[in-house]
Amino acid sequence: MPGSGAITGVIDGVLARGMDRICGEIDRAFDLLLPVPEDARARLVEAMRYATIGSGKRLRPLLLTATADLYGVDRDSAVRAGAAIEAIHVYSLIHDDLPCMDDDDLRRGKPTVHKAFDEATAVLAGDSLHALAFEILGDPAISGDPFIRAELVSTLARASGHEGMAGGQMMDIVADSETFDLHTITRLQQLKTGALLGAAVEMGAILGKVPHEGRTHLRNYARDIGLAFQIADDLLDHEGDEELAGKALRKDDAQGKQTFVSLLGPERARDQARALVEQAVGHLANHGDEADLLRAIARYIVERDH
Amino acid sequence: MPGSGAITGVIDGVLARGMDRICGEIDRAFDLLLPVPEDARARLVEAMRYATIGSGKRLRPLLLTATADLYGVDRDSAVRAGAAIEAIHVYSLIHDDLPCMDDDDLRRGKPTVHKAFDEATAVLAGDSLHALAFEILGDPAISGDPFIRAELVSTLARASGHEGMAGGQMMDIVADSETFDLHTITRLQQLKTGALLGAAVEMGAILGKVPHEGRTHLRNYARDIGLAFQIADDLLDHEGDEELAGKALRKDDAQGKQTFVSLLGPERARDQARALVEQAVGHLANHGDEADLLRAIARYIVERDH
Repeated sequence: MPGSGAITGVIDGVLARGMDRICGEIDRAFDLLLPVPEDARARLVEAMRYATIGSGKRLRPLLLTATADLYGVDRDSAVRAGAAIEAIHVYSLIHDDLPCMDDDDLRRGKPTVHKAFDEATAVLAGDSLHALAFEILGDPAISGDPFIRAELVSTLARASGHEGMAGGQMMDIVADSETFDLHTITRLQQLKTGALLGAAVEMGAILGKVPHEGRTHLRNYARDIGLAFQIADDLLDHEGDEELAGKALRKDDAQGKQTFVSLLGPERARDQARALVEQAVGHLANHGDEADLLRAIARYIVERDH
Repeated sequence: MPGSGAITGVIDGVLARGMDRICGEIDRAFDLLLPVPEDARARLVEAMRYATIGSGKRLRPLLLTATADLYGVDRDSAVRAGAAIEAIHVYSLIHDDLPCMDDDDLRRGKPTVHKAFDEATAVLAGDSLHALAFEILGDPAISGDPFIRAELVSTLARASGHEGMAGGQMMDIVADSETFDLHTITRLQQLKTGALLGAAVEMGAILGKVPHEGRTHLRNYARDIGLAFQIADDLLDHEGDEELAGKALRKDDAQGKQTFVSLLGPERARDQARALVEQAVGHLANHGDEADLLRAIARYIVERDH
């Protein structure tokens, strides 16, 4: 949590190593997936590379691979699935930053895609990353088992469409002009952010061939960290450091928008986020050391400063 | 071809029945897939319904189901796959019509989605239809065979991303400011329009469990009608009826943009389109009556008046 001073204690060795590793792996995956063609499509692929390589916390791939590691999944498969979910996340950021959406000029500390390129290229780069995600998941290179490939596709498509992330973004737009209660804000955030974080964990379990009934504790973990993540985001928007965040903050306050912080107050919001993290970690009780990275991610989610 | 007067002769019984049937089936599929939720996502789903139900030629689902019919594919499976490819086509139209892209106010005879709703809703409705396409293909309801589901996903994702449709759209934007030769225009159109028409035929063959090596004649058919389709489109843009087209025409002429018509002249373009259609029909020589609908579609593509 911003200013709590606990951050160095929390980003322990497990988390630092896990993050370093996945950041390198995801950069390399996109570099290989996106060679720049020698024709007029070059600008499009340059924009896709600009948005995907060299920045971002890679939280979704980290969650996915950390879950896959519980079940001894081949690393290359897990990283491919991680690149797929990151492609969805990044496309949503590109479209969300457009002038007709949030109209943001800065993302991850650099100009947004429509600023660095132009709006039409940003729309197409987002659309192309969206398609790329499903190209990765349909490709036999991710798993020789077509049942796994098809289930990965279903899970990610459902989590990102009108019943998931995009539905949450729509609710978020409506929230600019309507007043939502805590229940509706919670539902909005579960869709907008929680659905994709949940899909990350679920996709790790799918690769690990964990049957549906064996995924309940992972789903509960994902639900709790998803909500904690959003509360922490609202706190960061309220009291975080713009330079560290690499994007404009305090937009919610300026718009008088309902958030967890405006509805609960910063203190109760902070307490609730911490309680959710403890609850999330509790769901992993039946796992040993191999779940330490998932535990560290849960703690990082509320202690991060950007 | 516009003004050729041959249209009534070409839209024969086979084609008229095929079109009627698929239009009803695709409308019904989207109606069932998109119930309007009783929350703030309602606006998003209304926009998705507005764009998908009740209009459009349904050419891609028609091609897909006509190909699937050659191999006795269950109709419900073929229609689901048809709805998936139509969802991709419609999302691309919504995004293409945005002010930062082609900035069109009219589509299929009614206001474009960003005019009827707003730009942010149009971006999200396009994104949600994109996700819906893969949700449909990943769902076991389309086929009990996960290998088929995964191959449908791969085929549609590749055809719609930066190596397919979206790549072609990028080239089309670049074509506004650079001068392309006939070879580059052909490549642009193969990506922008041809890739998805090719995917429609390919997906029908996948559902029909036709092995790769048995699909060559279908791929050749699709390539030829894809190019013929675009030449016909350029001719319609040059000399068609705006009211019948349901959208603004003569934009290419006004922009001085290179098209098949500007490069070849209307007469040679018309001849080339007809030659391509005869060539396309020739690839179906080993099929009997069961391919009459595919033959009728090929002829319709150059004879249509909108």
